[in-house]
Amino acid sequence: MPQSVVKNASEIVEMDLDGGGKIRWLITHRDGAKNFSMRLITLPKEKSTPNHSHDYEHEIFVLEGDGEAQLDDKIIPVGKDSFLFIPGGSQHTIRAKDDMKLICVVPVNVAVKMLGP
Amino acid sequence: MPQSVVKNASEIVEMDLDGGGKIRWLITHRDGAKNFSMRLITLPKEKSTPNHSHDYEHEIFVLEGDGEAQLDDKIIPVGKDSFLFIPGGSQHTIRAKDDMKLICVVPVNVAVKMLGP
Repeated sequence: MPQSVVKNASEIVEMDLDGGGKIRWLITHRDGAKNFSMRLITLPKEKSTPNHSHDYEHEIFVLEGDGEAQLDDKIIPVGKDSFLFIPGGSQHTIRAKDDMKLICVVPVNVAVKMLGP
Repeated sequence: MPQSVVKNASEIVEMDLDGGGKIRWLITHRDGAKNFSMRLITLPKEKSTPNHSHDYEHEIFVLEGDGEAQLDDKIIPVGKDSFLFIPGGSQHTIRAKDDMKLICVVPVNVAVKMLGP
């Protein structure tokens, strides 16, 4: 059985994200997660998450900061306590109006693909 | 294809949680989520999440407040920016030392079971 993990996000290495943000992969298959993977994204003011589309979903919660989400042709303001369900196949990006912090959860096979085994 | 969802947590009804907290099921199968479900939990000071064990995992991120996690026989302090991976089969609870706010993600079949279709 996998062991429990309790850490602070500051213990996890930050990686660059296309668009000017940073990502920390908090929980992945390397911890024994079998279904989904939790990441923490920080977006400095005026930076954005990658503007892309893929076949898997995002579930996002905004911890801090205001910005706008573009989902296909819709632009929607987001801020603290906003959450987003972005299904596979939707073109999407979030642009930060001030420094933003987001939790973004993806299927765990995305972690395997991006980080390796 | 499911539609994107963008809402504020305050739009979602709060439900009681054993131990004295409240839970909002932010994203579930009802939104078209096929793999995992995101919930927001608030724990008033001195309240706790259910002290239980089940066959599915939790991925938790602490948004606000200090407390302590009990995971089987270990007691570990947690606070803002702590995260927890609790695998299936682990007895667990979080006790709030002051008002806490947590994101807790579970497999989507848990939402189906708890909320109905």
